[in-house]
Amino acid sequence: MQELINKALNGNVRSIARIISIVENESQFTEEIMKTMYPHSGNAHIIGVTGSPGAGKSTLVDKLIESSKADGKNVGVIAVDPTSPFSGGAILADRIRMQRHAVDPAVYIRSMGTRGSLGGLSRSTYEAALILDACGKDVVFIETVGVGQSEVDIMKIADTVCLALVPGMGDDIQIMKAGIMEIADILVINKSDRDGSEKIVAEVQTMLDLLKGKNWVPPVLKTVAEKGTGVKELSNKILCHKEFLQTDPEGRNRKLRQLTVEIEAILQRELAKLTEHQWGQHKDEQLMEKLLNRETDPYTVAGKILEDTLLNTPTRD
Amino acid sequence: MQELINKALNGNVRSIARIISIVENESQFTEEIMKTMYPHSGNAHIIGVTGSPGAGKSTLVDKLIESSKADGKNVGVIAVDPTSPFSGGAILADRIRMQRHAVDPAVYIRSMGTRGSLGGLSRSTYEAALILDACGKDVVFIETVGVGQSEVDIMKIADTVCLALVPGMGDDIQIMKAGIMEIADILVINKSDRDGSEKIVAEVQTMLDLLKGKNWVPPVLKTVAEKGTGVKELSNKILCHKEFLQTDPEGRNRKLRQLTVEIEAILQRELAKLTEHQWGQHKDEQLMEKLLNRETDPYTVAGKILEDTLLNTPTRD
Repeated sequence: MQELINKALNGNVRSIARIISIVENESQFTEEIMKTMYPHSGNAHIIGVTGSPGAGKSTLVDKLIESSKADGKNVGVIAVDPTSPFSGGAILADRIRMQRHAVDPAVYIRSMGTRGSLGGLSRSTYEAALILDACGKDVVFIETVGVGQSEVDIMKIADTVCLALVPGMGDDIQIMKAGIMEIADILVINKSDRDGSEKIVAEVQTMLDLLKGKNWVPPVLKTVAEKGTGVKELSNKILCHKEFLQTDPEGRNRKLRQLTVEIEAILQRELAKLTEHQWGQHKDEQLMEKLLNRETDPYTVAGKILEDTLLNTPTRD
Repeated sequence: MQELINKALNGNVRSIARIISIVENESQFTEEIMKTMYPHSGNAHIIGVTGSPGAGKSTLVDKLIESSKADGKNVGVIAVDPTSPFSGGAILADRIRMQRHAVDPAVYIRSMGTRGSLGGLSRSTYEAALILDACGKDVVFIETVGVGQSEVDIMKIADTVCLALVPGMGDDIQIMKAGIMEIADILVINKSDRDGSEKIVAEVQTMLDLLKGKNWVPPVLKTVAEKGTGVKELSNKILCHKEFLQTDPEGRNRKLRQLTVEIEAILQRELAKLTEHQWGQHKDEQLMEKLLNRETDPYTVAGKILEDTLLNTPTRD
């Protein structure tokens, strides 16, 4: 294992891919891998790209990869797909185009699933980003399809979050925007050659007025990613935001918030394992029958399991 | 407290409202309330209505309330709004119309927030549904705005899940559908007087073909809720599904799955409280500084907190 980790840390692409797969499968080696990787991480600029469905996020990322490569950067990409046990995983047409970069040794692209069909980013997405960072990528893009919790989760790992919107969406979508607006560092109105582009810019600006006085007020940029229009400006703004984080106290605060969330997430996973185990010990037909007949209740059962978890879990002392 | 609970159990609307508020604020009384309520629950038919943004879910629920009232049913409604700290909570225009039922003593309508801006259903949504059930509602509708995890969570509590779709949505939305299709007991193509209605019915049918051979294959219904078209048929199908659950082993299995999820959720909440406390004890500037400098890592820190939680939490023994 240590040899594989070392190869990955030296930038060997096949080793990186294997390491990510091992972590993705939640193997017993995950903790060892992550503990070894961690001291080497912290150098990459992690850029989240999220937004409404149909906003052209993949095309934007495709153009941003081009731009990063032109600057001589070593690029990692994590493309997050919603996992559906029903459809057996969806393939997004736009993603196929992005794959043209995959033959380039300076670009590593990885598709990953979400936590359940509409769930947030899985732990392994965080871990894969950290691994790519530790293994020498200068820039890591994380693209999430904008359907739910994954949009919120992106701010738990990215240094810079780009939120892509498009002109001509319905009212419910506007509400969705209101929810995710607060996570954006940069707002991108893509497909801005469409009707309604000025309207959405104005709406977004009105919302952003509420942020006035903050050290960083998200800029609003218009792009037409398909034609490459506005992509250079977007790349520049992303770099501006990176510099902002390096010089403003907000950069440090953001890192502190992310660390807190990170530790809580690891705790949650470990606790889930413990309770699952204890619940497995308690769960039998008799108990379930009593629950179904309402002779006992979930609160009483959970209380008992909790007590047993705390009493019976062996510790390392 | 016991007096208030008794009044609520006897159907007093103001007491029910107060009890739900107490539970929503996660007070010390939550456990007592829920333990008292639990044996009285299990009689209501809990119906989830979810679906894509703009699918007309509120209008559908509004018509279904009418239909239930006409059958002499005592109705509870929980309307779940995405909570946004940024916009300070969104008001949905459609919801206002539904409020016309609120003056009717046989209908109780309650708005509740989600867990964070795009998160899943909060624990208190489950608890409110159970309270309405225990307090004598025959039917409880839970309407979720279809933006994320709350769509998935609805199947953890509802007996019958109606998924509303509309003709003429983009490709990304179709993928979203693929993810949520598996949670639906009944598929409703609303606004079916629009162009593309046959196309979406065909698409949905193709997906449903994968479920062939199951004891319940979700029916696909066309409605125009605004005009009331197809609402009677939908009400009937909902009753059919209720009967199915009462006679088929799947009904019992579903309840068992929901109980398991319920107990796990309570355990998670209680454990989160414990680790939060321990994390609060550990978290100091020195530790955060070491994390920022990568002298330690989140995995090591989480391991230490977990150990201390298990060692130092007093149990009732």
